[in-house]
Amino acid sequence: MEFSSKLLEKAVNEMAQLPGIGKRTALRLVLHLLKQPKEQTQLLASALTQLREDIRFCSRCHNISDEEICYICSNPAREQSVVCVVEDIRDVMALENTGLYKGLYHVLGGKISPIDGVGPSQLNIPSLVEKVKSGAVKEIIFALSSTMEGDTTNFYIYRQIKDSDVIVSAIARGIAIGDELEYADEVTLGRSILHRIPFENAIKNS
Amino acid sequence: MEFSSKLLEKAVNEMAQLPGIGKRTALRLVLHLLKQPKEQTQLLASALTQLREDIRFCSRCHNISDEEICYICSNPAREQSVVCVVEDIRDVMALENTGLYKGLYHVLGGKISPIDGVGPSQLNIPSLVEKVKSGAVKEIIFALSSTMEGDTTNFYIYRQIKDSDVIVSAIARGIAIGDELEYADEVTLGRSILHRIPFENAIKNS
Ligand SMILES: [Zn+2]
Ligand SMILES: [Zn+2]
Repeated sequence: MEFSSKLLEKAVNEMAQLPGIGKRTALRLVLHLLKQPKEQTQLLASALTQLREDIRFCSRCHNISDEEICYICSNPAREQSVVCVVEDIRDVMALENTGLYKGLYHVLGGKISPIDGVGPSQLNIPSLVEKVKSGAVKEIIFALSSTMEGDTTNFYIYRQIKDSDVIVSAIARGIAIGDELEYADEVTLGRSILHRIPFENAIKNS
Repeated sequence: MEFSSKLLEKAVNEMAQLPGIGKRTALRLVLHLLKQPKEQTQLLASALTQLREDIRFCSRCHNISDEEICYICSNPAREQSVVCVVEDIRDVMALENTGLYKGLYHVLGGKISPIDGVGPSQLNIPSLVEKVKSGAVKEIIFALSSTMEGDTTNFYIYRQIKDSDVIVSAIARGIAIGDELEYADEVTLGRSILHRIPFENAIKNS
Protein backbone atom coordinates (compact mmCIF):
# COMPACT_ATOMS: atom_id res chain seq x y z
CA MET A 1 0.00 0.00 0.00
CA GLU A 2 1.56 3.29 -1.10
CA PHE A 3 0.49 6.50 0.62
CA SER A 4 0.49 10.07 -0.64
CA SER A 5 1.18 11.34 2.89
CA LYS A 6 3.57 10.19 5.63
CA LEU A 7 1.13 11.40 8.29
CA LEU A 8 -1.62 9.28 6.78
CA GLU A 9 0.68 6.28 6.46
CA LYS A 10 1.75 6.54 10.10
CA ALA A 11 -1.85 6.77 11.35
CA VAL A 12 -2.92 3.79 9.22
CA ASN A 13 0.06 1.70 10.30
CA GLU A 14 -0.61 2.38 13.99
CA MET A 15 -4.31 1.58 13.59
CA ALA A 16 -3.41 -1.65 11.76
CA GLN A 17 -1.44 -2.82 14.83
CA LEU A 18 -4.77 -3.54 16.50
CA PRO A 19 -5.83 -7.20 16.33
CA GLY A 20 -8.20 -8.02 13.47
CA ILE A 21 -7.70 -4.61 11.85
CA GLY A 22 -6.00 -4.99 8.47
CA LYS A 23 -4.47 -2.15 6.47
CA ARG A 24 -7.62 -1.61 4.39
CA THR A 25 -9.86 -1.40 7.43
CA ALA A 26 -7.35 0.88 9.16
CA LEU A 27 -7.40 3.21 6.15
CA ARG A 28 -11.21 3.23 6.14
CA LEU A 29 -11.29 4.10 9.87
CA VAL A 30 -8.68 6.84 9.53
CA LEU A 31 -10.43 8.41 6.51
CA HIS A 32 -13.65 8.34 8.51
CA LEU A 33 -11.99 10.30 11.33
CA LEU A 34 -10.76 12.86 8.78
CA LYS A 35 -14.36 13.49 7.71
CA GLN A 36 -15.52 14.01 11.30
CA PRO A 37 -14.93 17.13 13.43
CA LYS A 38 -11.44 17.30 14.96
CA GLU A 39 -12.95 16.81 18.42
CA GLN A 40 -13.83 13.19 17.70
CA THR A 41 -10.21 12.28 17.06
CA GLN A 42 -9.09 14.27 20.11
CA LEU A 43 -11.62 12.52 22.34
CA LEU A 44 -10.60 9.09 21.07
CA ALA A 45 -6.88 9.81 21.45
CA SER A 46 -7.21 11.25 24.94
CA ALA A 47 -9.58 8.51 26.17
CA LEU A 48 -7.11 5.82 25.08
CA THR A 49 -4.09 7.66 26.48
CA GLN A 50 -5.79 8.43 29.79
CA LEU A 51 -6.96 4.85 30.26
CA ARG A 52 -3.52 3.47 29.44
CA GLU A 53 -1.82 5.92 31.82
CA ASP A 54 -4.25 5.78 34.72
CA ILE A 55 -5.43 2.17 34.52
CA ARG A 56 -5.81 0.55 37.93
CA PHE A 57 -6.80 -2.90 39.04
CA CYS A 58 -8.81 -3.82 42.12
CA SER A 59 -6.32 -4.92 44.77
CA ARG A 60 -8.63 -7.77 45.79
CA CYS A 61 -9.98 -9.29 42.55
CA HIS A 62 -7.74 -7.67 39.86
CA ASN A 63 -10.78 -6.36 37.97
CA ILE A 64 -10.17 -3.05 36.17
CA SER A 65 -11.29 -0.36 38.58
CA ASP A 66 -10.92 3.40 39.09
CA GLU A 67 -10.78 2.81 42.85
CA GLU A 68 -8.44 0.77 45.06
CA ILE A 69 -11.29 -1.71 45.65
CA CYS A 70 -13.76 -2.34 42.80
CA TYR A 71 -17.53 -1.80 43.06
CA ILE A 72 -18.13 -5.55 43.28
CA CYS A 73 -15.63 -6.30 46.07
CA SER A 74 -16.78 -3.25 48.03
CA ASN A 75 -20.48 -4.17 47.81
CA PRO A 76 -21.51 -5.55 51.27
CA ALA A 77 -24.50 -7.32 49.67
CA ARG A 78 -22.20 -9.69 47.75
CA GLU A 79 -21.23 -13.04 49.28
CA GLN A 80 -17.62 -12.37 50.24
CA SER A 81 -16.76 -16.05 50.69
CA VAL A 82 -17.70 -17.21 47.18
CA VAL A 83 -15.10 -16.49 44.50
CA CYS A 84 -15.54 -17.08 40.78
CA VAL A 85 -12.24 -17.47 38.92
CA VAL A 86 -12.27 -15.90 35.44
CA GLU A 87 -9.72 -15.21 32.77
CA ASP A 88 -10.51 -11.65 31.85
CA ILE A 89 -12.67 -8.67 32.79
CA ARG A 90 -14.97 -9.42 29.85
CA ASP A 91 -15.96 -12.59 31.68
CA VAL A 92 -16.83 -10.53 34.78
CA MET A 93 -19.01 -8.27 32.60
CA ALA A 94 -20.68 -11.28 30.98
CA LEU A 95 -21.46 -12.92 34.35
CA GLU A 96 -22.64 -9.62 35.86
CA ASN A 97 -25.05 -9.26 32.91
CA THR A 98 -26.84 -12.45 33.96
CA GLY A 99 -27.80 -10.77 37.25
CA LEU A 100 -27.69 -14.23 38.90
CA TYR A 101 -24.30 -14.32 40.55
CA LYS A 102 -23.91 -12.68 43.96
CA GLY A 103 -20.38 -13.70 44.93
CA LEU A 104 -17.03 -12.10 44.12
CA TYR A 105 -14.55 -12.66 41.29
CA HIS A 106 -10.89 -13.32 40.87
CA VAL A 107 -9.50 -12.18 37.50
CA LEU A 108 -6.46 -14.25 36.48
CA GLY A 109 -5.51 -12.02 33.56
CA GLY A 110 -5.12 -14.95 31.15
CA LYS A 111 -4.63 -18.71 31.04
CA ILE A 112 -1.52 -20.83 31.44
CA SER A 113 -0.23 -21.28 27.90
CA PRO A 114 3.29 -22.65 27.43
CA ILE A 115 3.04 -21.99 23.65
CA ASP A 116 2.43 -18.28 24.24
CA GLY A 117 5.02 -18.22 27.04
CA VAL A 118 2.40 -17.58 29.75
CA GLY A 119 3.31 -19.34 32.97
CA PRO A 120 1.53 -19.31 36.38
CA SER A 121 3.79 -16.48 37.63
CA GLN A 122 2.46 -14.07 34.98
CA LEU A 123 -1.10 -14.66 36.15
CA ASN A 124 -2.88 -13.61 39.35
CA ILE A 125 -2.65 -17.13 40.75
CA PRO A 126 -0.52 -16.66 43.92
CA SER A 127 -2.97 -14.11 45.35
CA LEU A 128 -5.84 -16.52 44.71
CA VAL A 129 -4.08 -19.42 46.46
CA GLU A 130 -3.21 -17.12 49.38
CA LYS A 131 -6.84 -15.95 49.58
CA VAL A 132 -8.03 -19.57 49.80
CA LYS A 133 -5.38 -20.58 52.34
CA SER A 134 -6.29 -17.65 54.58
CA GLY A 135 -9.59 -19.43 55.16
CA ALA A 136 -11.74 -16.52 53.97
CA VAL A 137 -13.10 -18.46 51.00
CA LYS A 138 -15.87 -21.03 51.31
CA GLU A 139 -16.25 -21.81 47.62
CA ILE A 140 -14.16 -21.38 44.49
CA ILE A 141 -15.96 -21.55 41.14
CA PHE A 142 -13.88 -22.16 38.02
CA ALA A 143 -15.30 -20.26 35.05
CA LEU A 144 -12.42 -20.34 32.55
CA SER A 145 -13.19 -21.21 28.97
CA SER A 146 -13.09 -24.95 28.36
CA THR A 147 -9.98 -25.07 26.21
CA MET A 148 -6.81 -27.03 26.90
CA GLU A 149 -5.27 -23.88 28.42
CA GLY A 150 -8.36 -23.32 30.59
CA ASP A 151 -8.28 -26.93 31.84
CA THR A 152 -4.53 -26.74 32.51
CA THR A 153 -5.04 -23.56 34.53
CA ASN A 154 -7.92 -25.10 36.52
CA PHE A 155 -5.81 -28.15 37.37
CA TYR A 156 -2.82 -26.05 38.33
CA ILE A 157 -4.89 -24.03 40.79
CA TYR A 158 -6.84 -27.06 42.00
CA ARG A 159 -3.66 -28.92 42.95
CA GLN A 160 -2.63 -26.03 45.19
CA ILE A 161 -5.93 -25.58 47.00
CA LYS A 162 -7.43 -29.07 47.15
CA ASP A 163 -6.16 -29.68 50.68
CA SER A 164 -7.78 -26.48 51.95
CA ASP A 165 -11.22 -26.53 53.47
CA VAL A 166 -12.88 -25.11 50.38
CA ILE A 167 -15.58 -26.27 47.97
CA VAL A 168 -14.20 -26.28 44.43
CA SER A 169 -16.84 -26.14 41.72
CA ALA A 170 -16.97 -25.40 38.01
CA ILE A 171 -19.66 -23.65 35.99
CA ALA A 172 -22.09 -26.09 34.38
CA ARG A 173 -21.24 -27.14 30.88
CA GLY A 174 -24.26 -25.53 29.32
CA ILE A 175 -21.76 -23.64 27.23
CA ALA A 176 -20.47 -25.36 24.13
CA ILE A 177 -16.94 -26.75 24.48
CA GLY A 178 -14.48 -24.28 22.98
CA ASP A 179 -16.84 -21.29 23.07
CA GLU A 180 -15.70 -18.10 24.76
CA LEU A 181 -17.73 -16.99 27.79
CA GLU A 182 -18.23 -13.48 26.50
CA TYR A 183 -20.15 -14.70 23.44
CA ALA A 184 -22.51 -16.99 25.35
CA ASP A 185 -26.15 -15.95 25.66
CA GLU A 186 -27.20 -14.67 29.08
CA VAL A 187 -29.67 -17.46 29.83
CA THR A 188 -27.19 -20.25 29.17
CA LEU A 189 -24.46 -18.47 31.06
CA GLY A 190 -26.80 -17.73 33.98
CA ARG A 191 -27.84 -21.37 34.24
CA SER A 192 -24.29 -22.58 34.05
CA ILE A 193 -23.30 -20.59 37.11
CA LEU A 194 -26.47 -21.52 39.06
CA HIS A 195 -26.06 -25.22 38.25
CA ARG A 196 -22.36 -25.39 38.93
CA ILE A 197 -21.13 -28.83 39.93
CA PRO A 198 -18.27 -30.09 42.13
CA PHE A 199 -14.97 -29.85 40.24
CA GLU A 200 -14.34 -33.60 40.78
CA ASN A 201 -17.58 -34.31 38.93
CA ALA A 202 -16.64 -31.87 36.17
CA ILE A 203 -13.37 -33.65 35.40
CA LYS A 204 -14.99 -37.10 35.47
CA ASN A 205 -16.63 -36.60 32.09
CA SER A 206 -13.89 -34.74 30.30
CA MET B 1 -22.74 -3.11 28.80
CA GLU B 2 -21.78 -2.22 32.37
CA PHE B 3 -18.20 -1.21 33.08
CA SER B 4 -16.21 -1.44 36.31
CA SER B 5 -14.27 1.69 35.34
CA LYS B 6 -15.32 5.05 33.89
CA LEU B 7 -11.96 5.37 32.12
CA LEU B 8 -12.50 2.02 30.44
CA GLU B 9 -16.06 2.89 29.53
CA LYS B 10 -14.99 6.18 27.94
CA ALA B 11 -12.24 4.54 25.88
CA VAL B 12 -14.59 1.80 24.67
CA ASN B 13 -17.34 4.29 23.81
CA GLU B 14 -14.97 6.47 21.79
CA MET B 15 -13.56 3.45 19.96
CA ALA B 16 -17.11 2.26 19.22
CA GLN B 17 -17.80 5.56 17.39
CA LEU B 18 -15.71 4.22 14.51
CA PRO B 19 -17.75 2.73 11.67
CA GLY B 20 -18.13 -1.05 11.82
CA ILE B 21 -16.70 -1.22 15.37
CA GLY B 22 -19.34 -2.41 17.84
CA LYS B 23 -19.04 -2.19 21.61
CA ARG B 24 -17.68 -5.74 21.93
CA THR B 25 -15.01 -5.21 19.30
CA ALA B 26 -14.12 -1.85 20.87
CA LEU B 27 -13.69 -3.55 24.26
CA ARG B 28 -11.50 -6.25 22.70
CA LEU B 29 -9.30 -3.60 21.03
CA VAL B 30 -9.01 -1.50 24.19
CA LEU B 31 -8.14 -4.54 26.35
CA HIS B 32 -5.52 -5.47 23.77
CA LEU B 33 -3.94 -2.03 24.12
CA LEU B 34 -3.88 -2.46 27.90
CA LYS B 35 -1.80 -5.63 27.50
CA GLN B 36 0.70 -3.88 25.22
CA PRO B 37 3.45 -1.49 26.33
CA LYS B 38 2.20 2.07 26.97
CA GLU B 39 4.15 3.28 23.94
CA GLN B 40 1.80 1.54 21.51
CA THR B 41 -1.19 3.50 22.78
CA GLN B 42 0.82 6.73 22.78
CA LEU B 43 1.98 6.17 19.19
CA LEU B 44 -1.56 5.42 18.02
CA ALA B 45 -3.03 8.43 19.82
CA SER B 46 -0.38 10.84 18.58
CA ALA B 47 -0.44 9.54 14.98
CA LEU B 48 -4.21 10.07 14.84
CA THR B 49 -4.08 13.49 16.49
CA GLN B 50 -1.20 14.70 14.34
CA LEU B 51 -2.86 13.56 11.11
CA ARG B 52 -6.16 15.19 12.09
CA GLU B 53 -4.42 18.46 13.05
CA ASP B 54 -1.94 18.72 10.20
CA ILE B 55 -3.91 17.10 7.37
CA ARG B 56 -3.46 18.90 4.05
CA PHE B 57 -4.90 18.33 0.61
CA CYS B 58 -3.10 18.87 -2.70
CA SER B 59 -4.27 22.23 -4.02
CA ARG B 60 -4.54 20.80 -7.54
CA CYS B 61 -6.12 17.35 -7.20
CA HIS B 62 -7.37 17.36 -3.54
CA ASN B 63 -5.45 14.15 -2.77
CA ILE B 64 -4.18 13.95 0.84
CA SER B 65 -0.65 15.31 0.77
CA ASP B 66 1.99 16.57 3.19
CA GLU B 67 3.02 19.19 0.59
CA GLU B 68 1.10 21.97 -1.13
CA ILE B 69 1.24 19.93 -4.38
CA CYS B 70 1.10 16.12 -4.12
CA TYR B 71 3.78 13.76 -5.48
CA ILE B 72 1.57 12.80 -8.43
CA CYS B 73 0.72 16.35 -9.58
CA SER B 74 4.33 17.45 -9.13
CA ASN B 75 5.76 14.54 -11.14
CA PRO B 76 6.79 15.93 -14.57
CA ALA B 77 6.67 12.44 -16.07
CA ARG B 78 2.86 12.29 -15.61
CA GLU B 79 0.56 13.42 -18.43
CA GLN B 80 -0.70 16.72 -17.04
CA SER B 81 -3.59 16.96 -19.51
CA VAL B 82 -5.29 13.67 -18.59
CA VAL B 83 -7.40 13.77 -15.42
CA CYS B 84 -9.10 10.78 -13.79
CA VAL B 85 -12.06 11.75 -11.60
CA VAL B 86 -12.35 9.61 -8.45
CA GLU B 87 -14.43 9.68 -5.30
CA ASP B 88 -11.84 9.15 -2.65
CA ILE B 89 -8.11 8.78 -2.08
CA ARG B 90 -8.52 5.01 -1.79
CA ASP B 91 -9.41 5.01 -5.50
CA VAL B 92 -6.20 6.90 -6.24
CA MET B 93 -4.26 4.27 -4.31
CA ALA B 94 -6.03 1.42 -6.12
CA LEU B 95 -5.34 2.92 -9.56
CA GLU B 96 -1.72 3.72 -8.66
CA ASN B 97 -1.28 0.08 -7.62
CA THR B 98 -2.01 -1.03 -11.21
CA GLY B 99 1.08 0.87 -12.37
CA LEU B 100 -0.71 1.47 -15.70
CA TYR B 101 -2.12 4.97 -15.35
CA LYS B 102 0.18 7.89 -16.09
CA GLY B 103 -2.17 10.88 -15.94
CA LEU B 104 -3.34 12.95 -12.97
CA TYR B 105 -6.34 12.64 -10.64
CA HIS B 106 -9.11 14.81 -9.32
CA VAL B 107 -10.49 13.66 -5.96
CA LEU B 108 -14.14 14.71 -5.50
CA GLY B 109 -14.33 13.74 -1.84
CA GLY B 110 -17.60 11.87 -2.27
CA LYS B 111 -20.58 11.46 -4.58
CA ILE B 112 -23.72 13.56 -4.99
CA SER B 113 -26.26 11.94 -2.66
CA PRO B 114 -29.46 13.85 -1.84
CA ILE B 115 -30.41 11.18 0.73
CA ASP B 116 -27.20 11.79 2.69
CA GLY B 117 -27.48 15.54 2.15
CA VAL B 118 -24.41 15.70 -0.09
CA GLY B 119 -24.84 18.26 -2.87
CA PRO B 120 -22.39 19.36 -5.60
CA SER B 121 -21.21 22.30 -3.47
CA GLN B 122 -19.82 19.97 -0.78
CA LEU B 123 -17.65 18.18 -3.35
CA ASN B 124 -14.59 19.32 -5.27
CA ILE B 125 -16.63 19.84 -8.45
CA PRO B 126 -16.23 23.61 -9.12
CA SER B 127 -12.42 23.31 -9.24
CA LEU B 128 -12.72 20.44 -11.73
CA VAL B 129 -15.05 22.38 -14.02
CA GLU B 130 -12.74 25.39 -13.81
CA LYS B 131 -9.73 23.20 -14.64
CA VAL B 132 -11.50 21.87 -17.75
CA LYS B 133 -12.72 25.33 -18.86
CA SER B 134 -9.20 26.75 -18.57
CA GLY B 135 -8.30 24.51 -21.53
CA ALA B 136 -5.50 22.68 -19.68
CA VAL B 137 -7.29 19.32 -19.81
CA LYS B 138 -7.38 17.12 -22.92
CA GLU B 139 -9.22 14.14 -21.43
CA ILE B 140 -11.41 13.54 -18.39
CA ILE B 141 -11.86 9.92 -17.25
CA PHE B 142 -14.79 9.14 -14.93
CA ALA B 143 -13.85 6.42 -12.46
CA LEU B 144 -16.63 6.72 -9.85
CA SER B 145 -18.33 3.58 -8.61
CA SER B 146 -21.25 2.57 -10.83
CA THR B 147 -24.03 3.22 -8.34
CA MET B 148 -26.94 5.62 -8.76
CA GLU B 149 -24.96 8.29 -6.87
CA GLY B 150 -21.91 7.70 -9.04
CA ASP B 151 -23.96 8.01 -12.24
CA THR B 152 -25.71 11.16 -10.96
CA THR B 153 -22.34 12.74 -10.16
CA ASN B 154 -20.92 11.81 -13.58
CA PHE B 155 -23.93 13.36 -15.35
CA TYR B 156 -23.82 16.50 -13.23
CA ILE B 157 -20.18 17.11 -14.13
CA TYR B 158 -20.68 16.04 -17.74
CA ARG B 159 -23.43 18.63 -18.30
CA GLN B 160 -21.09 21.39 -17.19
CA ILE B 161 -18.11 20.38 -19.32
CA LYS B 162 -19.67 18.86 -22.45
CA ASP B 163 -19.35 22.11 -24.44
CA SER B 164 -15.64 22.35 -23.66
CA ASP B 165 -13.06 20.92 -26.05
CA VAL B 166 -12.37 17.85 -23.88
CA ILE B 167 -12.61 14.10 -24.40
CA VAL B 168 -14.85 12.58 -21.71
CA SER B 169 -14.36 8.86 -21.10
CA ALA B 170 -15.23 6.33 -18.41
CA ILE B 171 -13.30 3.31 -17.12
CA ALA B 172 -14.32 0.05 -18.80
CA ARG B 173 -16.85 -2.11 -16.95
CA GLY B 174 -16.67 -5.80 -17.53
CA ILE B 175 -15.98 -9.23 -16.16
CA ALA B 176 -13.05 -9.27 -13.75
CA ILE B 177 -9.96 -11.16 -14.94
CA GLY B 178 -10.25 -14.75 -13.78
CA ASP B 179 -14.00 -14.58 -13.03
CA GLU B 180 -16.34 -17.17 -14.49
CA LEU B 181 -18.93 -15.77 -16.93
CA GLU B 182 -21.73 -17.83 -15.41
CA TYR B 183 -21.37 -16.11 -12.02
CA ALA B 184 -21.21 -12.55 -13.37
CA ASP B 185 -24.22 -10.28 -12.87
CA GLU B 186 -26.31 -9.63 -15.98
CA VAL B 187 -25.71 -5.89 -16.13
CA THR B 188 -21.93 -6.25 -16.05
CA LEU B 189 -21.99 -9.10 -18.55
CA GLY B 190 -24.29 -7.13 -20.84
CA ARG B 191 -22.00 -4.11 -20.77
CA SER B 192 -18.93 -6.20 -21.39
CA ILE B 193 -20.39 -7.64 -24.59
CA LEU B 194 -21.75 -4.30 -25.82
CA HIS B 195 -18.48 -2.53 -25.09
CA ARG B 196 -16.26 -5.26 -26.47
CA ILE B 197 -12.83 -4.27 -27.72
CA PRO B 198 -10.58 -5.54 -30.54
CA PHE B 199 -8.90 -8.78 -29.48
CA GLU B 200 -5.46 -7.36 -30.31
CA ASN B 201 -6.10 -4.61 -27.75
CA ALA B 202 -7.30 -7.12 -25.16
CA ILE B 203 -4.11 -9.20 -25.27
CA LYS B 204 -1.76 -6.18 -25.34
CA ASN B 205 -1.77 -5.61 -21.56
CA SER B 206 -2.24 -9.17 -20.41
ZN1 LIG C 1 -12.59 -6.21 43.08
ZN1 LIG D 1 -2.23 16.47 -6.51
